[in-house]
Amino acid sequence: MCEAELDMSTFENRQFRLSARPAGMVKRSDFEFVTTPAADPGPGEALVRVQYLSLDPAMRGWMNAGRSYIAPVGIGEVMRAGGIGRVVASNDPGLAVGDTVVGMTGVQDYAVVQAKTMVKVDPRLAPLPRFLGALGMPGLTAYFGLLDIGQPKEGETVVVSAAAGAVGAVVGQIAKIKGCRVVGIAGGPQKCGYVTDELGFDAAIDYKSEDVRAMLAQHCPKGIDVYFDNVGGEILDIALSLLAMRARVIICGAISQYNHPESIAGPRNYLSLLINNARMEGFVVFHFAARYAEGMQALAGWVLSGKIKAREDVVDGLESFPDTLQRLFRGENFGKLVLQVSAS
Amino acid sequence: MCEAELDMSTFENRQFRLSARPAGMVKRSDFEFVTTPAADPGPGEALVRVQYLSLDPAMRGWMNAGRSYIAPVGIGEVMRAGGIGRVVASNDPGLAVGDTVVGMTGVQDYAVVQAKTMVKVDPRLAPLPRFLGALGMPGLTAYFGLLDIGQPKEGETVVVSAAAGAVGAVVGQIAKIKGCRVVGIAGGPQKCGYVTDELGFDAAIDYKSEDVRAMLAQHCPKGIDVYFDNVGGEILDIALSLLAMRARVIICGAISQYNHPESIAGPRNYLSLLINNARMEGFVVFHFAARYAEGMQALAGWVLSGKIKAREDVVDGLESFPDTLQRLFRGENFGKLVLQVSAS
Repeated sequence: MCEAELDMSTFENRQFRLSARPAGMVKRSDFEFVTTPAADPGPGEALVRVQYLSLDPAMRGWMNAGRSYIAPVGIGEVMRAGGIGRVVASNDPGLAVGDTVVGMTGVQDYAVVQAKTMVKVDPRLAPLPRFLGALGMPGLTAYFGLLDIGQPKEGETVVVSAAAGAVGAVVGQIAKIKGCRVVGIAGGPQKCGYVTDELGFDAAIDYKSEDVRAMLAQHCPKGIDVYFDNVGGEILDIALSLLAMRARVIICGAISQYNHPESIAGPRNYLSLLINNARMEGFVVFHFAARYAEGMQALAGWVLSGKIKAREDVVDGLESFPDTLQRLFRGENFGKLVLQVSAS
Repeated sequence: MCEAELDMSTFENRQFRLSARPAGMVKRSDFEFVTTPAADPGPGEALVRVQYLSLDPAMRGWMNAGRSYIAPVGIGEVMRAGGIGRVVASNDPGLAVGDTVVGMTGVQDYAVVQAKTMVKVDPRLAPLPRFLGALGMPGLTAYFGLLDIGQPKEGETVVVSAAAGAVGAVVGQIAKIKGCRVVGIAGGPQKCGYVTDELGFDAAIDYKSEDVRAMLAQHCPKGIDVYFDNVGGEILDIALSLLAMRARVIICGAISQYNHPESIAGPRNYLSLLINNARMEGFVVFHFAARYAEGMQALAGWVLSGKIKAREDVVDGLESFPDTLQRLFRGENFGKLVLQVSAS
């Protein structure tokens, strides 16, 4: 028995389907843009009108064949993406028409979802795109990665790359809440100014115009206790060369490397781990799923009280998806990159 | 007031002094071989007749300029080395003539040492070279690295490279004692046979003749829980690609990389840490100095009861030092490599 707003077969559903495994940078021709009627939700399912989609670095990895923490998107399948939207039909007692839900919707207008995989949120608490950023997976990634893996202590020096990004901005602000000295690395004076002036980091380094090694050494005179890495490549190598004893390096991502998966640069300075009895640890936020409620509660408290500031970069139009995703890998977004599919 | 066997100035002391920072493989011309009279021990010092020297991969790093966990050996200084020997003169109440001591002696016949930096051992317990191997720093390195950093659990799969080497052999045997499945990687059928037949590993892979990736995958069907790395390079990369969830990678050394410090290969597969929520942690045994007594007690118990077997490769003649050290980097030694300086 299905509760619905309207006759669903009248909904045109535009979808981006993966049509080729990208070589190098993802491009429009790696996708097919098709229109089909929205499907009916089966038992335990709901139909969601997608309003905003989260564009994340991890999406590039999902397009590659091969072993990872999650199966690759199949050729011909709707491109995987997290999203937020409104339930327009439900075939599950757990969701009602009108509910606002967050979860994996895919890059499309209407998603048939397993009701139990979606999280209901209160749309009055924050603008919807924020539930894909500081109040969503990026926020949880920052929370568990910094606190559980990094274990920062008061007075320690925390460095974070992609500091103006969805994850990095929250990492640095949580580190400040915990009493750490925080140095961010970001691209361009606008992002660096945001990181220090609005987010309250102690310092920011512009990797596009400054000597990252020299500036990091200057801002971290006692070495780096916690390095939260979102970028990999040369910046990871520089950070490794400046570790303090018993430092923790958190491998959250490697956006500089994702578009050439066949020639990933390994961290040449990894023997700094040996010299400094230091640790490099990776994680995927999905493995903390059992503790999402704890993380969300903490993040919501900080965001709603203003201790954590958030910024989203909202681009309008589902049809722009491939081009908007490229902006992410070129570092052109300023704040959590969100694609608006429908304002209502 | 100095207690002595003989007039020390009659002792001819041959020394290898570092004369150049090696480029690539260490070679004889990087050292000066000189003969001087043995010096008198000052207050708090003793004069030790060096009997055996430990030749270790770490020695290559000590020859490089630059930041590390220990100052580099200065040009013109006696090459640093651990050794065991007999006290022939003492100017400290803590050591008596005739005591057998282990510590940093340098590559020479006679060493003036700070008495408090030396550890007295009972030469009746084991052949002297063993105090430089399973009952010395390599044994302690294996003990703290595997147990403290690796934290192996019963039933887990432990992989160790340089498995027939001084550290690797002890790592694997401790892992067996702890109830793990143990796979060793070593060079050549003789070392591989030793590892399985004498040391009791479950399997050994000959990296010189076998497909390490295929054999590791076969011997570790559930993935690698603990990888103890002594070699770096390609084998580290292969191990990373086969990690189990929440695996621990222990970075103990990188002998494959030490002779080209300017072009160290970073682990290209480090993002396996992310996919598997895994950890890579380095260490230097010196940082466990406060717990050496605990480690020595455990190791002595296992060695004396036969639970840990040890093998030394003893080469005679101080004068052969540079050539014997090269054998280590070419993997030609079989067992802990020890240089005999004087049998008595």
